[in-house]
Amino acid sequence: MSEYTPPLRDLRFVLNEIIDIEGLSRLEPLSEATPDLVDAVLEEAGRFSREVIAPLNQVGDSEGSRLENGVVITAPGFKEAYRQFGEGGWQGMSFDPEYGGQGLPFTVATAVEEMIGSASLAFSLCPMLSRGAIELISQHGTEIQKETFLRKMIAGEWSGTMNLTEPQAGSDVGAVRSKAVPEGDHYRISGTKIFITYGEHDMAENIVHMVLARLPDAPPGTRGISCFIVPKFLVNADGSLGVRNDLRCVSLEHKLGIHASPTAVMSFGDNEGAIGYLVGPENGGMRCMFTMMNAARMAVGQEGLSVGERAYQQALSYACERIQGRPLGADEGAAIVEHPDVRRQLMTIKCQLEAARALQLFTAQSVDLARHHPEAEAREQNAALVDLLTPVVKGWVSDMGVEVTSMALQVHGGMGFIEETGAAQHYRDARIAPIYEGTNGIQALDLIGRKLPLAGGQVVRDFLEDVRRLDDELAGTGDELKSLRQSLADGVAALGKATEWMLTAGDDPRDAAAGATPYLRLFGIVAGGYMMALAALAAQKRLVTGDDETFYRAKIATARFYAEQILPQAPGLLGPATRGAGTLFEIDAETLNS
Amino acid sequence: MSEYTPPLRDLRFVLNEIIDIEGLSRLEPLSEATPDLVDAVLEEAGRFSREVIAPLNQVGDSEGSRLENGVVITAPGFKEAYRQFGEGGWQGMSFDPEYGGQGLPFTVATAVEEMIGSASLAFSLCPMLSRGAIELISQHGTEIQKETFLRKMIAGEWSGTMNLTEPQAGSDVGAVRSKAVPEGDHYRISGTKIFITYGEHDMAENIVHMVLARLPDAPPGTRGISCFIVPKFLVNADGSLGVRNDLRCVSLEHKLGIHASPTAVMSFGDNEGAIGYLVGPENGGMRCMFTMMNAARMAVGQEGLSVGERAYQQALSYACERIQGRPLGADEGAAIVEHPDVRRQLMTIKCQLEAARALQLFTAQSVDLARHHPEAEAREQNAALVDLLTPVVKGWVSDMGVEVTSMALQVHGGMGFIEETGAAQHYRDARIAPIYEGTNGIQALDLIGRKLPLAGGQVVRDFLEDVRRLDDELAGTGDELKSLRQSLADGVAALGKATEWMLTAGDDPRDAAAGATPYLRLFGIVAGGYMMALAALAAQKRLVTGDDETFYRAKIATARFYAEQILPQAPGLLGPATRGAGTLFEIDAETLNS
Repeated sequence: MSEYTPPLRDLRFVLNEIIDIEGLSRLEPLSEATPDLVDAVLEEAGRFSREVIAPLNQVGDSEGSRLENGVVITAPGFKEAYRQFGEGGWQGMSFDPEYGGQGLPFTVATAVEEMIGSASLAFSLCPMLSRGAIELISQHGTEIQKETFLRKMIAGEWSGTMNLTEPQAGSDVGAVRSKAVPEGDHYRISGTKIFITYGEHDMAENIVHMVLARLPDAPPGTRGISCFIVPKFLVNADGSLGVRNDLRCVSLEHKLGIHASPTAVMSFGDNEGAIGYLVGPENGGMRCMFTMMNAARMAVGQEGLSVGERAYQQALSYACERIQGRPLGADEGAAIVEHPDVRRQLMTIKCQLEAARALQLFTAQSVDLARHHPEAEAREQNAALVDLLTPVVKGWVSDMGVEVTSMALQVHGGMGFIEETGAAQHYRDARIAPIYEGTNGIQALDLIGRKLPLAGGQVVRDFLEDVRRLDDELAGTGDELKSLRQSLADGVAALGKATEWMLTAGDDPRDAAAGATPYLRLFGIVAGGYMMALAALAAQKRLVTGDDETFYRAKIATARFYAEQILPQAPGLLGPATRGAGTLFEIDAETLNS
Repeated sequence: MSEYTPPLRDLRFVLNEIIDIEGLSRLEPLSEATPDLVDAVLEEAGRFSREVIAPLNQVGDSEGSRLENGVVITAPGFKEAYRQFGEGGWQGMSFDPEYGGQGLPFTVATAVEEMIGSASLAFSLCPMLSRGAIELISQHGTEIQKETFLRKMIAGEWSGTMNLTEPQAGSDVGAVRSKAVPEGDHYRISGTKIFITYGEHDMAENIVHMVLARLPDAPPGTRGISCFIVPKFLVNADGSLGVRNDLRCVSLEHKLGIHASPTAVMSFGDNEGAIGYLVGPENGGMRCMFTMMNAARMAVGQEGLSVGERAYQQALSYACERIQGRPLGADEGAAIVEHPDVRRQLMTIKCQLEAARALQLFTAQSVDLARHHPEAEAREQNAALVDLLTPVVKGWVSDMGVEVTSMALQVHGGMGFIEETGAAQHYRDARIAPIYEGTNGIQALDLIGRKLPLAGGQVVRDFLEDVRRLDDELAGTGDELKSLRQSLADGVAALGKATEWMLTAGDDPRDAAAGATPYLRLFGIVAGGYMMALAALAAQKRLVTGDDETFYRAKIATARFYAEQILPQAPGLLGPATRGAGTLFEIDAETLNS
């Protein structure tokens, strides 16, 4: 079984030297988040992840969750770990102190969630979905709804879910058919929902389902969807649990990965109809759901990083222990980490994880600034930047998670294919992230269709200008960062051209759509390069003062490796992103099968 | 459960119009392989694959093989299918008629094996290992050994294995410790072997193990390794089965994929020592094993194609059935195959499968020419080309198999992650191919270290010249192939530069090794582009005569798609291939973990 060592040093580096975590504590609502407190939170989160959750990862995979007589029994240890998670206050980190939250920056919560996800992705999904539901009720719920649900949810005593998907309504949420019929102060909900993460389980006393359904005579499509709170147990006026609501888990899916996370088929209203409470306006459910989805999309991107980091640590540990062959130029057998090709794999993983971590926390910082900056213009700018970067984080980082877990498995040679080694679990677990919360294809379409046009293209142009401006700083750094300067310049030039092409793509909307996926990849690689350049510049400054030389030298080495091995992919994506749809549709669907 | 449709049309296209299968039948030993016969063989192999083997693929995955009291019981249906496989003569397709083989071209056998592998990769591994053992005994065995073993093995009544790996001897075969002590006309073998595919099973009457072991006082390393035939049951003088040899299956591995293929830990000589017969000279075992390994490496590359094709067919079928959302520019919901991003994924898979299939059969043709061409020089040239291309086929096609099965899974959205859908099995099964028969890292080192220097670099330079020369033909084809001409020229230019760099890389052997993996990928992408250009030119010629327009138009479309979407990666690999080892070793192993 693999150990997990929280990457506290790198998290602190990003928080303190790439972004400005201390600056966030100068914003009024975040004033308690002093550097000392943030440090203590990270330390304790690291300990909790390493000691309490990480040991459950493999047993969660082999035992999984199971459904028995309508009850879902989670894997051994999960219930107790979840209790400790709630008691430790981890569920409420970034939420409103009025309802028991700790009011910490979203950025700090993001750093913590990376570690929880590395410790056990399957475990982390329960709190992740709960966060979405808490966010939704916080922003769109009535006072009574907040009072009734938030405190228990923030305390981690009740969990939350998202009920969007139905068999005919996946990427096309507008096709939802579940029904909601008004009845006094509530509604009667009926319908079948699929792919409901932690839709039923034994870790929390109550499960608060956020359900999309249609009122009678609602308009078709997404404009006719409303959002409801549908708790597993109704809540009495005194806050105690009342009768069981008319909803049940029909079955659990047998999945490629995240076995410990129960994926439920939920049936609402088999009898008299489940009681639900409208959140937000009638037919305004999509806006509510987007509240959950944007945060969830960032979180799902981060899953690629979390599982990738765990897989990396395991591969590195194997590579340092496994003696095999004589490395080139050596006289005797050595650990395979000394072989250039194994080293290449490890560095390829490491540099991309570092880039992804920085991009994740960079985006999270903008979430905090969008919420709490005193100036409206700064809030708007940061909100727009979050909108722009969310599909990039979701798509690029989750794809990267699949690639690096595959590479980490490969480092193990034949042992990687044996399930007991554990490398295969990371590979299986990571595969979900490009799929859910909007497939990466949907993310790419969101990026080109909704995000690039923000403010007439000014949001993306401003971001690219920030990347380009870094060239002035890189120019003064001498030979050490020469390859970084060059490849970042080439990368951002390609991204700039592709962006202008996307913003002005012609009459056939399929042309831009045809290039959306390579465009997102191009964007991610360049955004990652931007992060690595910020990291290298920060590291150079610290080297001047002589601090922690080994660490900062390594930072420059990974930045250079990223520049020399990853960024060169960028120019090659310009053509694929801007070719248009012509060749795509030259073959009709029938002929594709010949 | 997914159906399988043998890609007979594309196989015939490659055999008849990219390579010259009819030309092979003009070689004396292959004269019976007339076009009509080849066609009938392909047709029947397709039927057998589709009807008999393909239905076993999913049950093989869910049931797997299991070990009970030393006996391995294969999944339901496997034993009967293997019997039919043997009776149909499929095991002996390309082997010597003197021992019951059919003497067909290796190229035809390769085409057939693609289909068997698509039908069930796990099933196909038993015949694949047997082929290696047959090849080895055919080339290095004594007349008595041939007489004793070949007939039964070629008939598919007995199967064969390769016993190389030991816990301390994986990529480093020279570290083998198993012992062989001479005793009269045989040897007593003892030792433990791991990762033995079909090391024990119930499908064949006898299992003929090819075992690497060391004689007493053998020199260390690979120069002290000998190869032995160690049958599960000894064979009496009259050819009947005799007593059980002293070897047993200790356990089976629990693997990520290919569940139906038993991966055994084998123990030889727990008691008096297993009886083994020396093949080839004492201490000459490595040469014997390379006979098996080269063919096996081509076959393992092909596994990426086989599983990729099956995954593609399933994804396409899903994409044509699944209605979701309105495609851009359409008024109503349609099958997702009409969405540009889904179409992009399908075309990305399809064009690479076509390129891989052509490269596989192109290389196989050279195997036949190397064996049977009347002129020694042509035999040598073709043998050298096979040597050069084998690691490219193994590495590039098996990596591609992982990528395209992942993409095929993604086409299914959430359903792809559900095991019952079957897409996940392809993704899991395909993952073994980059690992075994020499990891793809080992292939890359073989390519740069042993294959590029062949004939002082002339072999690879000749191949590149063949690719470049195609430009003359492409020049005359007008606008339709303009993008293909351009991107192939850019690709071969990058490959040419990288090749010259590799051939003249400086003093530190780690520099070339550091770039070996991106170099192999670059080589594969350009070789694939070469195949697609040959395909496009052939298709254009047929369009002039008005044949089967839909098929040939599609050929040109996939070639263009490959040119516009895959080949543009090539120039971006030149830098990574030629950077040297500098950045790789700037961080010491300890610091990698921070």
